[in-house]
Amino acid sequence: MNIEGIVSAVRKALGNPEKPVLLHAPAFNGNEWKYVKECIDTGWVSSAGSYVTRFEQDLARFTGAKHAVVTVNGTAALHIALKLAGVQAGDEVLMPSLTFIATANATSYCGAIPHFCDVEVRTLGMDPGKLADYLKDIAVSRDEGVYNRLTQRRIAAVVPMHTFGHPVDLPSLLRLCQQYGIPLVEDAAESLGSYYDGTHTGRFGRLAILSFNGNKTLTTGGGGAIITDDAELGARAKHITTTAKLPHAWEFVHDEVGYNYRMPNINAALGCAQLEQLPAFLQRKRELATRYQEALAGMEGVSVFREPVNCRSNYWLNVLLLDQADLQMRDALLQGLNAAGLQSRPVWRPMHALSMYAACPRMDLSQTQCLASRIVNVPSSAFL
Amino acid sequence: MNIEGIVSAVRKALGNPEKPVLLHAPAFNGNEWKYVKECIDTGWVSSAGSYVTRFEQDLARFTGAKHAVVTVNGTAALHIALKLAGVQAGDEVLMPSLTFIATANATSYCGAIPHFCDVEVRTLGMDPGKLADYLKDIAVSRDEGVYNRLTQRRIAAVVPMHTFGHPVDLPSLLRLCQQYGIPLVEDAAESLGSYYDGTHTGRFGRLAILSFNGNKTLTTGGGGAIITDDAELGARAKHITTTAKLPHAWEFVHDEVGYNYRMPNINAALGCAQLEQLPAFLQRKRELATRYQEALAGMEGVSVFREPVNCRSNYWLNVLLLDQADLQMRDALLQGLNAAGLQSRPVWRPMHALSMYAACPRMDLSQTQCLASRIVNVPSSAFL
Repeated sequence: MNIEGIVSAVRKALGNPEKPVLLHAPAFNGNEWKYVKECIDTGWVSSAGSYVTRFEQDLARFTGAKHAVVTVNGTAALHIALKLAGVQAGDEVLMPSLTFIATANATSYCGAIPHFCDVEVRTLGMDPGKLADYLKDIAVSRDEGVYNRLTQRRIAAVVPMHTFGHPVDLPSLLRLCQQYGIPLVEDAAESLGSYYDGTHTGRFGRLAILSFNGNKTLTTGGGGAIITDDAELGARAKHITTTAKLPHAWEFVHDEVGYNYRMPNINAALGCAQLEQLPAFLQRKRELATRYQEALAGMEGVSVFREPVNCRSNYWLNVLLLDQADLQMRDALLQGLNAAGLQSRPVWRPMHALSMYAACPRMDLSQTQCLASRIVNVPSSAFL
Repeated sequence: MNIEGIVSAVRKALGNPEKPVLLHAPAFNGNEWKYVKECIDTGWVSSAGSYVTRFEQDLARFTGAKHAVVTVNGTAALHIALKLAGVQAGDEVLMPSLTFIATANATSYCGAIPHFCDVEVRTLGMDPGKLADYLKDIAVSRDEGVYNRLTQRRIAAVVPMHTFGHPVDLPSLLRLCQQYGIPLVEDAAESLGSYYDGTHTGRFGRLAILSFNGNKTLTTGGGGAIITDDAELGARAKHITTTAKLPHAWEFVHDEVGYNYRMPNINAALGCAQLEQLPAFLQRKRELATRYQEALAGMEGVSVFREPVNCRSNYWLNVLLLDQADLQMRDALLQGLNAAGLQSRPVWRPMHALSMYAACPRMDLSQTQCLASRIVNVPSSAFL
């Protein structure tokens, strides 16, 4: 592997920048300022305000979901989506080990236990074939649901995550979930603007969540959303994320233990302005992905990851995939790229390798282990 | 009780406004615009950003606390403050029943059980004398802490709340906590700028929390903070509210189940600008409190609540206290005030009267019951 050559090709794809380039930075060239100023000028910066409602409507329209409920961040959205899917203390939740910490943590907040599944190299997400074989082995159906016969715990949800914006094999996972009667909840934190066969990610699960953190394709500073087609779940999501307060002109009555997961209006204002530009962001991110593919074509020891078949990805973060023979070069490549001012990083340490989740149940994770050493993310902002 | 007379006196205190007046709205006449624009122009809107650090330093300086950690809201801050004070699943937490839902909910998030205490009319907050008598009855000391002999659960914390900004009797509560060895955690969500005997509220407990919701004296849209003098607790608060990620140039390693409770930089920018104006806000809120006291002096059936002795209150929300003989007039007064465009509300429904907390342990709550029907909050914004 020629590290200098790869660094130079990455630089070329980015137009040989003179200044350091961040992994992912937002672009605010639309109405961000105008909308945020309106919040400040009118005093409506907090959780009551018209941009919250508008952003929810705009998100529903963009994704095609019937209901969208915005929240303070993606982790909060996932916590509530899991609760509404029926995840209870002592349950298990099937999820990839190769994911951001929020997927596992949101499960912990429910008092439930992450149960780690392997991924496939084709999508970087959950491997439905391997999961099908695994469930044949461990799943037993009872009146109250599907149980893990090894732990005697209920399997309450399957939560795939669309890694770096690339859709997982949703039809196969959905079929499996339907076969067993386990709810599918999509962690679409990274895949706003990504489609499987023309349908937006997050539209296959009973519920799904989005994230608008500062490093995402669209940002609200911090923020997230729950999307669903189920009117009752949508209404429940709104109620429980807004302290479960009953509407009244002056009385403060709450009818269950709710959460203060409200997105402030000033953050929603940013989101409305960003969403107007999302089609342009997505277009430019596709162009950058193509430039990476061209610049690194034929490069030894590394390839640029392309969207899975039947999918249109948002290419949130571009992936250099190291050949298995060159794994030992990963840190040298990361050092080379970062030293050249091209902020790059490996994938997250897999969940089963973190101390607090090391004892959680898991299937064979050989592909996860392998990919954890093969992935290098390179700068991917929409404005590059 | 002469409702028309009271409405007219409230109007007079507010300078006979021509337009409807909200209960509490923020004022953005300082550097809000400049700082927020800087975030948007530089792209630093999210959880990494210099305003987050600056706001934490500014808050520590203002309150006199050694450490301040900002969070996504006051509820999140309280959740973590309770965890860090040692509250665990199955414990009980002593708190007023007369409080905002966050105090009880944050306890529930820890898997702990709220245990409701009565308040005194002198401060509108926890009654230390009554609590002392109660603890004599129910508390038993064991090696692992103080237990409630009726429920056999550990009493893990005492959490007073400074109602509408008026400091509770902190020295008496602190003495009681020290006597029993129970940690004091102050819910100072409403009392930024309120002092007991010259010391800022929140400085008496092992930890305390602040809130910067849209209706507070200072707002960041949504936001909160944990303050403490304990360096280790301060560092733990920062770590656990920022996903418990270990610092590294590119590796994503988390060493415990953490929370995504980070305040975005754009909200912290608002906070920095607001904090610069806080002394002026406090001054104007005192003036408004005086105007209410003057305008309603001698009015039959109602009095304006004044800060407790030894205290300097921020007068976050002004309180009309109905005479006990006139309780049945409360809703008519609320209707009269609101119909006149003067947004007014009663105090929150006490926690023990909400369905999900009705079965929680509690002492005699006669003063709480009484005050719950006597309080009417009237418009109190700093710019009025």
